[in-house]
Amino acid sequence: MKVALLSGGVGGARFACGLVSAVDPAGVTVIGNVGDDLDVLGLAVSPDLDSILYALAGLHDEERGWGRSGETWEALATVSALGGEDWFRLGDRDLGLHLVRTAALRSGEPLSAVTARLARALGIEAAIIPATDDRLRTWIDTPAGGFPFQEWFVARGHRDEVDGVRFEGSAEPAPGVMEALCDADVIVIAPSNPYVSIWPILAVEEVRAVLAARRVACVAVSPLIGGRAVKGPADRMLARMAGGTTPEHVAGCYAGLIDALVVDESDSAGPLAVRRVVTRTLMTDLDASRRLAETVLGAAA
Amino acid sequence: MKVALLSGGVGGARFACGLVSAVDPAGVTVIGNVGDDLDVLGLAVSPDLDSILYALAGLHDEERGWGRSGETWEALATVSALGGEDWFRLGDRDLGLHLVRTAALRSGEPLSAVTARLARALGIEAAIIPATDDRLRTWIDTPAGGFPFQEWFVARGHRDEVDGVRFEGSAEPAPGVMEALCDADVIVIAPSNPYVSIWPILAVEEVRAVLAARRVACVAVSPLIGGRAVKGPADRMLARMAGGTTPEHVAGCYAGLIDALVVDESDSAGPLAVRRVVTRTLMTDLDASRRLAETVLGAAA
Repeated sequence: MKVALLSGGVGGARFACGLVSAVDPAGVTVIGNVGDDLDVLGLAVSPDLDSILYALAGLHDEERGWGRSGETWEALATVSALGGEDWFRLGDRDLGLHLVRTAALRSGEPLSAVTARLARALGIEAAIIPATDDRLRTWIDTPAGGFPFQEWFVARGHRDEVDGVRFEGSAEPAPGVMEALCDADVIVIAPSNPYVSIWPILAVEEVRAVLAARRVACVAVSPLIGGRAVKGPADRMLARMAGGTTPEHVAGCYAGLIDALVVDESDSAGPLAVRRVVTRTLMTDLDASRRLAETVLGAAA
Repeated sequence: MKVALLSGGVGGARFACGLVSAVDPAGVTVIGNVGDDLDVLGLAVSPDLDSILYALAGLHDEERGWGRSGETWEALATVSALGGEDWFRLGDRDLGLHLVRTAALRSGEPLSAVTARLARALGIEAAIIPATDDRLRTWIDTPAGGFPFQEWFVARGHRDEVDGVRFEGSAEPAPGVMEALCDADVIVIAPSNPYVSIWPILAVEEVRAVLAARRVACVAVSPLIGGRAVKGPADRMLARMAGGTTPEHVAGCYAGLIDALVVDESDSAGPLAVRRVVTRTLMTDLDASRRLAETVLGAAA
């Protein structure tokens, strides 16, 4: 069974773990968001791709929710002591990956090739592909002005309300993205923030077009539980920009692109333009993630 | 008292510690070798400047002889695991400094300005200036071919005999270098490897010229003890390129540039074209380094 998964960072990465335990990992392609990639201290950091890499390699920090387990922070402490740029939390182990990726990108290797190489080195069977090898950046418009994603999210602690989300740069799909979407038996949109995790993937015009013209089911998983985000600002963004946090509002983010929405038992039963699948969506552990993935695949059948 | 010290890495850094404990550190300017600087994993690494910074800040690792004390190696372990460039030993704390320096250099700050800023951040009172802000690189000619310094020294473990040393790039002295040399009451050449630590500084034509035309004493400290290097290949290089390892051979490396050579008690008493000052030169601890510095300053008087 071939599954193409559109995924942001932590929530998507957790879902990806459930997915590869539910089906043959060799059939899974995770298409990752790069809109929140950033350059920090001269390093090319791809937070969402890294969350997926670390999660599928079993290296992620469960408790913190991002980055690597057993992480240390010596380099960043030195950066701070020397007056360097220390607002973005880079652990020592994490840094090693950024150094390798940055050197590879500088030598001309595309992000998709580096990512595939890193995934292989980490023993990951599923394919992980950035939505694009081009520079595509998410900008957040707020009452305080427009900010690059990470500046709003990390440096400003996503305290500003969001009036709009923009994507800077025109992007072609990375090699393998269109093939994965066209060959898939089912397309899944992970329980990620629609605006800042999935929309940047859909900002790649060809990706949006192939989803709109799909001949297989596309199933999205709502990232909300009882109208609230498990983590992060998805609920506040939906409330302000879509006018609410019901399944209908979530589905509205994917209008014309999905056939079913998987929602939590705790979510309201109002009208919904696509098929509704109700289950427990909180991924408390790998079992829960796998059960959710199985429900999603069942919904596609 | 104003002292200008020409210095390589570890031995020079240790001598610099003795010097700043013997005189007011505010009067000391360390002019550091940059011929063995390198780009590794996209980072601008200046091993000799860093040895001086770490030593004067009290952060150096006494036992290992280079790098920072209490160092950890998580980032490099990740780099290795991911198939990245791992031949040059970069510790996590050390990495923090390289990240800050590299980002500053990329933003257009000269190496001398970054180095001064790092020294201030580390609470160092003495001035530390790279010999040049320009790109000057040491090449080592061996029977196996020519190598950039660090490739020969680290990657090949300086196992190849050295037939010659070359310096690539034409370099102006960094701001402050000429002033320090011209204002100095005494100029000191640290017990560093003449060929690969001091010659790259003298490869800056104006530095060599001001030493040749000096109106104050210039005192060199031999890096050899009983004709042997305390560490590194200085003795093998002298034997092969100068024909021996006596004080005369060491002084020959600085012909026309020094007035006195400080040598160890264990070294031979053969002919010497400059004044010979005999003492114990092994810097076993800070006291020994300070005594050596005091002897050097006494020799200049």
